[in-house]
Amino acid sequence: MDKKLFTPGPLTTSKTVKEAMLRDLGSRDFEFIETVKYIRTELLKIAGVSRLDGFESIIMQGSGTFGIEAVISSIIPSGGHLLVLVNGAYGDRIAKIAVIHSISVSFIRTEENTFPNPSQLDDMLCSDPTITHVASVHCETTTGILNPIEEYANVCNKYNKTFIVDAMSSFGAIPIDMKANKIDVLISSSNKCIEGAPGFSVIIIKRDILETIENKPRTLSLDLCAQWKGLEADGQFRFTPPTHILLAFKQALIELSDEGGVAGRAERYSDNHKTLSKGMISLGFKEYVDKLNQSYIITSFLYPDHPNFDFAKFYSLLNERDCVIYPGKLSKQNCFRIGNIGRIYKEDIKNLLENIKIVLEEMNVSLSIRFPKNNSNTLLGGISSFILNL
Amino acid sequence: MDKKLFTPGPLTTSKTVKEAMLRDLGSRDFEFIETVKYIRTELLKIAGVSRLDGFESIIMQGSGTFGIEAVISSIIPSGGHLLVLVNGAYGDRIAKIAVIHSISVSFIRTEENTFPNPSQLDDMLCSDPTITHVASVHCETTTGILNPIEEYANVCNKYNKTFIVDAMSSFGAIPIDMKANKIDVLISSSNKCIEGAPGFSVIIIKRDILETIENKPRTLSLDLCAQWKGLEADGQFRFTPPTHILLAFKQALIELSDEGGVAGRAERYSDNHKTLSKGMISLGFKEYVDKLNQSYIITSFLYPDHPNFDFAKFYSLLNERDCVIYPGKLSKQNCFRIGNIGRIYKEDIKNLLENIKIVLEEMNVSLSIRFPKNNSNTLLGGISSFILNL
Repeated sequence: MDKKLFTPGPLTTSKTVKEAMLRDLGSRDFEFIETVKYIRTELLKIAGVSRLDGFESIIMQGSGTFGIEAVISSIIPSGGHLLVLVNGAYGDRIAKIAVIHSISVSFIRTEENTFPNPSQLDDMLCSDPTITHVASVHCETTTGILNPIEEYANVCNKYNKTFIVDAMSSFGAIPIDMKANKIDVLISSSNKCIEGAPGFSVIIIKRDILETIENKPRTLSLDLCAQWKGLEADGQFRFTPPTHILLAFKQALIELSDEGGVAGRAERYSDNHKTLSKGMISLGFKEYVDKLNQSYIITSFLYPDHPNFDFAKFYSLLNERDCVIYPGKLSKQNCFRIGNIGRIYKEDIKNLLENIKIVLEEMNVSLSIRFPKNNSNTLLGGISSFILNL
Repeated sequence: MDKKLFTPGPLTTSKTVKEAMLRDLGSRDFEFIETVKYIRTELLKIAGVSRLDGFESIIMQGSGTFGIEAVISSIIPSGGHLLVLVNGAYGDRIAKIAVIHSISVSFIRTEENTFPNPSQLDDMLCSDPTITHVASVHCETTTGILNPIEEYANVCNKYNKTFIVDAMSSFGAIPIDMKANKIDVLISSSNKCIEGAPGFSVIIIKRDILETIENKPRTLSLDLCAQWKGLEADGQFRFTPPTHILLAFKQALIELSDEGGVAGRAERYSDNHKTLSKGMISLGFKEYVDKLNQSYIITSFLYPDHPNFDFAKFYSLLNERDCVIYPGKLSKQNCFRIGNIGRIYKEDIKNLLENIKIVLEEMNVSLSIRFPKNNSNTLLGGISSFILNL
């Protein structure tokens, strides 16, 4: 039995998703082409759109970042100007990609536990008509904050700007209706909330954007338009696709549907997150993001203010107990992160919390004195009975 | 039971390689980092080098082409000049990548069933001192021809040029000693002759090349130097790695070693190829590449000159019989390809040949009248007894 992954991905996936990889399909074979077709159609459904609405889905080999770079480097023309709303490392990464490709970039940047106000975006678009594209991260995995993409989309629509959403860690778990929400481009990855294995990124995009791309690609591999045309021409990839990972993803899509689609998954993840948040606060931890803006995907916890707390040790001891958490990525504050996505249930979260409690005791980090008086610790079983169950 | 893949990849892999994917490892977890370390070390051994020799191995997400683009776009500086030796689609692809990245490119181009003479390369390097890098494909999968990279390397060494080898479909199957052969950079992929699943490329490169790369990357995702530095810093990938595919690859490396390393694999593939070649000629087919230059990886067969032969039908009928062959890629002649790499044994090749015979009869394509008189058809069992075995 593998360790449980309380990370932003790669995630714990179901046994059946992994078993779907026990096959070798040819990349030009009929069955594989049908698999790709199925995946592309289902992805559009999850985004609340269809080809009839003028949207296309494209699969790109590599990690999610490869998909972001495919979008930024492919759809923004040489005279374009990208505005990035930044409140974490993934917003910065979008901007970095634009800089590397010599694309003009502007920012609206805020502290990592808050986000740019839509009115700031309005002001910026009003004052600078050279801006052609706007990009925002949906759930900023740096912190777990959820950015108000619907409001950003409204502003972009008002000024007729192309709006790009990095929905890496939200797609499949948080309902997104690209048509209703006026989102032009969305990027996600195979190993996030669809609960597949890592190996490709997903791009959902308005067809008219693809049709008006200048014929001067900035890369060969990440040329989004060529990738789309290849898939359209014969259902095949231009370059070798990760066949096994696509088979796993098809199975993951079936299991998402079986769980009640995005709504069903949202319920489980919300439940996981509530259990986690309540339990961690009970243990004495403090969350970095305000509850109001916190996603139910991943949560940042500040390092406890205790002389015995050492994150490397905390991580290792939890790891030995088969719980894999995630280091922090904040620029200014020490924190660690716990994800509650993937094939993770409330019982897994409870088990994690019990292990955290044990590890804190092992480290002689007594946070429990900080328990709020009105918050009884009913969630956590007695430590002695728990140890017997290990 | 899946169809047998007689293709250039993705290939038929062993059950145990696929079963290695039945796990979810965190991408920053100790065990995964150890897996990556193991893979990077073993890859150097296969290339006949070590870190002490000044070589490094780098893993890059995506298909083999992503690895080629990572090399070309990362190591050739803005004032560089790449000479590409072209005798097929994969040589052309290298040149195309250079053009997209505004790198000066020259060619020596020959017909697809022959290759540039090393003396031509010598003349070119002698006459044009602006050339900084030379690239050649080892086994050109377009045809299956084997290019004389050792001789090219000698010439490059004489003129002190960086020599880049696309060893996509040869690495692991054809012995290559980068140090002895003076090869500076080699690119391959996870789903070729190491017999892993598709999802990443492999780059073996001299460390001093990495150390002298200008700090002006052309892409973020395919930045070879940053990828190397990331792996060196903490053994981790910069961006999400295909964890399952890396686990499969580790198992594939173990199985390569169990087979006697590259020498052992070369023996099986040679044997496969001999059986294929002999059988196809017996059936009346003609090979496109001269025997002298033909690799034991993949073979191009000309469409038979028979009015009833239709490749799409031929392919489909073989597919129905669980044999997946591959279309051709020649610019001037109609051909199809048959690969004999992957977890494929002589018995599989014999079975393919028997199926080809049956399919030809079904299509009423009588090539047997062309059998050379001195070549008895002992390889192929009687058709009636074969049908009973299906």
